[in-house]
Amino acid sequence: MCVCVFKNAGFDVLYHNMKHGSWQPRSLLICPAAIEETYSKSMSKLAKMASNGSPQGTFAPMWDVFRVSSDKLALCHLELMRKMNDLIRDINKYGDEQVKIHRKTKEEMVGTVEAVQAVQVQSGHLQKSKEGYHGKCLELDRLRKEGAPLKELEKAEMKSKKAAESFSLCIEKYNRVGGEFEQKMSESAQKFQEIEEAHLRQMKQLIKGYSHSIEDTHVQVGQVHEEFKQNVENIGIDNLIQKFAEQKGTGKDRPGAVSSVGLYFGWFPVGVKLKHKHTK
Amino acid sequence: MCVCVFKNAGFDVLYHNMKHGSWQPRSLLICPAAIEETYSKSMSKLAKMASNGSPQGTFAPMWDVFRVSSDKLALCHLELMRKMNDLIRDINKYGDEQVKIHRKTKEEMVGTVEAVQAVQVQSGHLQKSKEGYHGKCLELDRLRKEGAPLKELEKAEMKSKKAAESFSLCIEKYNRVGGEFEQKMSESAQKFQEIEEAHLRQMKQLIKGYSHSIEDTHVQVGQVHEEFKQNVENIGIDNLIQKFAEQKGTGKDRPGAVSSVGLYFGWFPVGVKLKHKHTK
Repeated sequence: MCVCVFKNAGFDVLYHNMKHGSWQPRSLLICPAAIEETYSKSMSKLAKMASNGSPQGTFAPMWDVFRVSSDKLALCHLELMRKMNDLIRDINKYGDEQVKIHRKTKEEMVGTVEAVQAVQVQSGHLQKSKEGYHGKCLELDRLRKEGAPLKELEKAEMKSKKAAESFSLCIEKYNRVGGEFEQKMSESAQKFQEIEEAHLRQMKQLIKGYSHSIEDTHVQVGQVHEEFKQNVENIGIDNLIQKFAEQKGTGKDRPGAVSSVGLYFGWFPVGVKLKHKHTK
Repeated sequence: MCVCVFKNAGFDVLYHNMKHGSWQPRSLLICPAAIEETYSKSMSKLAKMASNGSPQGTFAPMWDVFRVSSDKLALCHLELMRKMNDLIRDINKYGDEQVKIHRKTKEEMVGTVEAVQAVQVQSGHLQKSKEGYHGKCLELDRLRKEGAPLKELEKAEMKSKKAAESFSLCIEKYNRVGGEFEQKMSESAQKFQEIEEAHLRQMKQLIKGYSHSIEDTHVQVGQVHEEFKQNVENIGIDNLIQKFAEQKGTGKDRPGAVSSVGLYFGWFPVGVKLKHKHTK
């Protein structure tokens, strides 16, 4: 497939596309990386909230499940951010190389730029010359119709012939300059296409890497969700109440009744202890 | 399973847990909902960036894939945020109902609060009475050892007997008050446990709803990623260049050479057109 852009503007279009294409993937990744960072930080904050929140009540073990889950999600998204930042670093490096390639390409294409300018100039000359010849022919035609004197006709014919010769030379030069333009432009278009293909291949590679990282993270996040679901399922209500009683319980024994047996014997009541009798 | 917290502090522990438990799930969801909202907004912004970014170059169709994908991700997270907000609304409603239940429970448990206070007061009296009786017994013992006069011994014995009677009455009262405390406390603990069990059941239900919403979103997000991957795969490099040439191409024909045939015949050169002959 050939990019057929052979009019005078074609070179600029191709050159602009080459020069401004390479920085696109960077902006494509900087924003997502920042989004992942924000998400990760929020999840860390949530995890801290879950551990500071209210770890005293019956619900405490559930908060712990939330904390663990949020911490893991924070890590997943942090890892994704890191992978994206690695990609951005690769892209920056690639971008620097591209700048060098573009500079070199620009130098190599000086001939094409000159050919474009030459064809533009010569195209103007050709138009002017054509109009000149056209005018002389019209003049000759008019004089013939009017039956002008032979001397005048011969003079006009001479002018027309000279204009035709000049126009012919102009055409010749235009064709020569145009041929050169066509050849140079064809080479440059080929070169632009090669650079563009290599660039797009590289970009697709980068996007594949990006896509792969996102996929990995998605799988990890899915595992965290599954774990969360399982952990919530595993914490029974009985279990929550049991744990709460163990942590906050103020005692397992019933207070019981105090016995007054022995009070009236009083022979050695010193240090008498209040006996606790368990009521059923 | 019974929450055995029969010391005087037990009632406060249980009451505090009931009163401060119900608002926990709300804070558990407000933060994640906000996180999802932020994520969704960032993705929308990214989508706008992708469509405004640089839709002119060869890479334009790829930007479009990014835009579609970011837009869809924004929608997924927005939907999750909405589901979480629905859950928060449910929790607020539930919280209001809980406040009423707690108020009613507090009124019903006035008897328990009084029994707790009575047992605390009576426990103090019992201690004092025991110390009084103990003191009298020691005095009697001392007088006996010293071989005090009979009259003095009889007087001390009488005092000891009275103190024993008073102590005995105190024990009786303490046992009566204690029995009442035990019964009331047992009833209240049972009631607290029922409320707590219902509350934890409700909380688990809410968390399951939350977990379910997250799972749904995760599946949707996975589909968006898969689509993105496929779309990137489907856009060939040839295709990108083809589209670029179609949009930005400045023409398909080669400029060609201008023919000078017919210039010298000049019989009717008016309006002569520059014929383009295609060079091979």
